[in-house]
Amino acid sequence: MKLASLKSGRDGKLIVVSRDLSRAVSAETIAPTLQAALDDWAAKEPALVALYNDLNAGNCNGAFDFIPEDCAAPLPRAYHWADGSAYVTHVELVRKARGAELPESFWTDPLIYMGASDAFIGPRDDIEVESEDWGIDFEAEVVVITDDVPAGTSPELARNHIRLIGLVNDVSLRNLIPAELGKQFGFYQSKPWTSFTPVLATPDELGDAWDGAKLHLPLRATLNGELIGAPNAGVDMTFDFPTLIAHCAKSRALMTGTVIGSGTVSNVGSEAGSCCLAEVRCLETIANGSPSTPFMSFGDRVEIDMLDDAGNSIFGNIDQRVVQYTPPQ
Amino acid sequence: MKLASLKSGRDGKLIVVSRDLSRAVSAETIAPTLQAALDDWAAKEPALVALYNDLNAGNCNGAFDFIPEDCAAPLPRAYHWADGSAYVTHVELVRKARGAELPESFWTDPLIYMGASDAFIGPRDDIEVESEDWGIDFEAEVVVITDDVPAGTSPELARNHIRLIGLVNDVSLRNLIPAELGKQFGFYQSKPWTSFTPVLATPDELGDAWDGAKLHLPLRATLNGELIGAPNAGVDMTFDFPTLIAHCAKSRALMTGTVIGSGTVSNVGSEAGSCCLAEVRCLETIANGSPSTPFMSFGDRVEIDMLDDAGNSIFGNIDQRVVQYTPPQ
Repeated sequence: MKLASLKSGRDGKLIVVSRDLSRAVSAETIAPTLQAALDDWAAKEPALVALYNDLNAGNCNGAFDFIPEDCAAPLPRAYHWADGSAYVTHVELVRKARGAELPESFWTDPLIYMGASDAFIGPRDDIEVESEDWGIDFEAEVVVITDDVPAGTSPELARNHIRLIGLVNDVSLRNLIPAELGKQFGFYQSKPWTSFTPVLATPDELGDAWDGAKLHLPLRATLNGELIGAPNAGVDMTFDFPTLIAHCAKSRALMTGTVIGSGTVSNVGSEAGSCCLAEVRCLETIANGSPSTPFMSFGDRVEIDMLDDAGNSIFGNIDQRVVQYTPPQ
Repeated sequence: MKLASLKSGRDGKLIVVSRDLSRAVSAETIAPTLQAALDDWAAKEPALVALYNDLNAGNCNGAFDFIPEDCAAPLPRAYHWADGSAYVTHVELVRKARGAELPESFWTDPLIYMGASDAFIGPRDDIEVESEDWGIDFEAEVVVITDDVPAGTSPELARNHIRLIGLVNDVSLRNLIPAELGKQFGFYQSKPWTSFTPVLATPDELGDAWDGAKLHLPLRATLNGELIGAPNAGVDMTFDFPTLIAHCAKSRALMTGTVIGSGTVSNVGSEAGSCCLAEVRCLETIANGSPSTPFMSFGDRVEIDMLDDAGNSIFGNIDQRVVQYTPPQ
């Protein structure tokens, strides 16, 4: 099943989207919003699946063309956004570029930060930033949405709590990061916005590409029409999603609708390219002593997408421009 | 005006509470939940205030006795929880106890971490923790709830965005903190639960004690009936609430219902005692070379309260026990 939210008020309006992303239908009579569906998933899922099957069969009254431009983030606001850094090869590369050692524990203890979930942005929304000097970058990631996860859930049990899967652009302000990391309290100003693919999919939609813990397909990141990278999200993921969920739930429960992110997808050797500019710049620094690729400028366009084996987009793509923001006076 | 939420479903049921905390009335016909009221505050506030005035005057149909035991957190789940460490004297003390220097920038650049907002707990809810070895502590803090704050809002403008004020217990697992801070990504497992006073109050309820930026009253923290401290929340607050809000909104907007915390209230010299056990232990370490006060044990009871000049509780008190939690097998 594929779900999306049309822009409407603070929480959007839930729609069911056809497998080929061509058609959609309102799910309002089942649940007004995606959060409402997640709040009562066991009761709502069967009705949503029935509607999805009718839509795919062309037997759906009120169906309309699916237009990603009309979409908010599937959860326009969520109660919990925990973003891992599960591809430790990426962290190792960043450290290597600045001549720092990677602590051995980073291979066994997940790095996770708490992100801002109160204003996720849609797949076509502009990325509004006040200053290019902040070092504007994208990060292409895979995310899962959980249901209620009790505190102390093991990785083995955690895999039963994954309800939906999608992609995000975790916008990062690279030049604000060093000072924030230096304070040890985590990212805040340096992680302003997170945008989502138009659609989230249930795990069964992914076939063999989803093994219950990782998504084994290339994640494509494109800047101004040029492919920056398409590393495979199922390769070199040091901590799989159940491990990340169990880490987040070690000392407290996670409520339904919690978004868990993989962090920037990255493969050892980076032969298929990178999912953020910071990694490109690190590779340049290691090779040449300094980076040559700039961070993003106003007007730049970033696209993030994942294709199935037949070349069709699974979640629809993120396609955003960076624009200058002027604060209130 | 004073507002609370009765336990009911995931988001509670909004009630209006009398100034003296003795009586309450359902606000359901105005807004079913506090988040719903905040989502449309300009339209909802006048009706809520009218109901509050009727309740205080004893002219309210359907009024009932106010029972804190029946309360959830006022916002049982929220979209954004940003907790500062605004009393830098506290941070300095913690550093001094372990022989570390305080970076000079800590006096000018606020320390803020993103907390888990998907499951705030009520004023009488147990604090469920799996192991006493994690170093269970309380932190008594003041919080404000904002409306929608545009990105780049200045501290001068930020003070207009404070809608509600209350107290929290930011439960901390001290023995999990060093490893998490060492990873630089902020707190996660070490900040499991946050509990709230039964009631949040609008700023006008606080009279002269609220100057638009700080709350000038002692914050009382009690452990097993013994006062641990009552430092004045208006003294030695290095970063006031408008400054914290502006810091959080530097690169992105904050959505209505954002909770901004002061961090552990602390006064230079700690003559009025402390608002967490970690500070007590730091003072003991500085004086005697090692701490003598243990962290909390299962069965321990913590109370947090703030009294007005007449000795009446403003927000009602937090009164919780620590209990052992058994994870699912």
